[in-house]
Amino acid sequence: MPALLKRMLGAVSLAAALTLAPPLAEAQTAAEVLAATSPSDWRGLDLDNTLVMTLANGQDVIIELNPVFAPATVANIKLLVAERYFDGLSVNRVQDNYVTQWGDPEAEGPGQRSLGSAAATLTPEFVRRRDRTVPFTRLRDGDVYAEEVGFSNGFPVARSRREMWMTHCYGMVGVGRGMAPESGSGAELYAVIGHAPRHLDRNITLVGRVVSGMSALTALPRGTAALGFYEESAQRVGLLSVRLASRLPGGGPAGAIEILRTDTEAFAAWVDTRRNRRDDWFYEPAGRIDLCNLWLPSRTRSPD
Amino acid sequence: MPALLKRMLGAVSLAAALTLAPPLAEAQTAAEVLAATSPSDWRGLDLDNTLVMTLANGQDVIIELNPVFAPATVANIKLLVAERYFDGLSVNRVQDNYVTQWGDPEAEGPGQRSLGSAAATLTPEFVRRRDRTVPFTRLRDGDVYAEEVGFSNGFPVARSRREMWMTHCYGMVGVGRGMAPESGSGAELYAVIGHAPRHLDRNITLVGRVVSGMSALTALPRGTAALGFYEESAQRVGLLSVRLASRLPGGGPAGAIEILRTDTEAFAAWVDTRRNRRDDWFYEPAGRIDLCNLWLPSRTRSPD
Repeated sequence: MPALLKRMLGAVSLAAALTLAPPLAEAQTAAEVLAATSPSDWRGLDLDNTLVMTLANGQDVIIELNPVFAPATVANIKLLVAERYFDGLSVNRVQDNYVTQWGDPEAEGPGQRSLGSAAATLTPEFVRRRDRTVPFTRLRDGDVYAEEVGFSNGFPVARSRREMWMTHCYGMVGVGRGMAPESGSGAELYAVIGHAPRHLDRNITLVGRVVSGMSALTALPRGTAALGFYEESAQRVGLLSVRLASRLPGGGPAGAIEILRTDTEAFAAWVDTRRNRRDDWFYEPAGRIDLCNLWLPSRTRSPD
Repeated sequence: MPALLKRMLGAVSLAAALTLAPPLAEAQTAAEVLAATSPSDWRGLDLDNTLVMTLANGQDVIIELNPVFAPATVANIKLLVAERYFDGLSVNRVQDNYVTQWGDPEAEGPGQRSLGSAAATLTPEFVRRRDRTVPFTRLRDGDVYAEEVGFSNGFPVARSRREMWMTHCYGMVGVGRGMAPESGSGAELYAVIGHAPRHLDRNITLVGRVVSGMSALTALPRGTAALGFYEESAQRVGLLSVRLASRLPGGGPAGAIEILRTDTEAFAAWVDTRRNRRDDWFYEPAGRIDLCNLWLPSRTRSPD
């Protein structure tokens, strides 16, 4: 690869991090901060709230659910997964710069799949009560949509005086619904694949975040029917299986993943490098960062 | 398609607009606003500053350049296009949630293609002087990165007291560069395909915006080498040709496209519907909109 291309647009590679490890306080670049972390700055995924979705093409999408913000909906999804509701269903909708959505293409039709033991309607969990017991690392950068934004245990969230909610950043997973607020059961799920559609915040229940495998959802052909639905059934991408990671040996492909904890000094230092981009390529560092421009670092734990 | 799916996530279809046309002042939804526009609310593309890029798979990407913000770089790109520099080159990089980039995969190597009459280095056009003669429709919604944001003749821009610059929203096209600020010639171009990487603003020259054909750049397989470059030459997607629209009969596929003017009351009314989403699906309208969440409406002019 030509040197010019390699240097372009300044992304940080973890390979670089492995060769540089100054102490955290002296770290200047994102790679240096990550290299200076200690094991306690990272956590494994919550395997009992993590889904491993395997597409028919063999690609895995790993989704961590957040029961602190959407307890009833997460429980309903786990019930659907336990009863293998999603196995053999498909990705039915890919709307450019918006969402990829999966579930039953025959939903509400005569051939729809039964939800089994799961509920068909749920009390909406668009927001939850603000509560001091819920971890919150605030970003001081401001936000167009909310009074306060930050991270809660790895999930991007916003807060008002009385409420808090997860936000529609890239990779967030939500629950499709019809006109009725309670119509989102979790049987139809979507992931955000474009610029954060934050106007959906507080209007639909978010349940989690894609931690790994986004490109399996983003590199798909866009649907050409209204709202990006595929016109022909042959265009749909099948779902081989959706499993709870804790039911797979060693957590399956989710078992080795670690993400940077968002309640650590290392996280704060990493955010600061994303604000200020101290590497030489940058001419005019922004000094600020948008909540949804922070894609949480992850790594694969080496086998013991 | 099942009714539940059809109603999901509230996108506005232009089909709906055709059946409803209240006066602009009474229009409540985006579809109603667009239906109530008059011909003078729209403009054709500036064909002498519009590129038609045809991929080897036959898909067209239409890019409107903005010489008001990057005159020298736009002129250099037009020279490269006139001398058919891009024909037969390829898309070489697709980095998820970041950029798709095209140009010479052998750039800086011994097999690199000559730039012909075009300059190999240019004075950076990262920002320009703020000037009252440059149209600017300000958004009142605030911004994480800049003091003022809005639109200038269809392009998203930001302003400080003395300067103005185009912003890295979804679909914006910029000029790859190396470490040296003047190393961006326009021979390597990229389009933003994810959440707006606004930290690149003022660090690299933006030249225009993809008006049509984004999915030809977003639905591609992600590259697996560093920074999303393709590892194998066979993975690259060829560029059949890049042409100036004004050199094609009737402007080619760019000739029939119209975009909503951003200096009109219709635009202001449309933005307001994007802030407040008055259709029944929305439960809690945001009341605000992020600059990069506004994808400018376009339409195809009927043949005379």
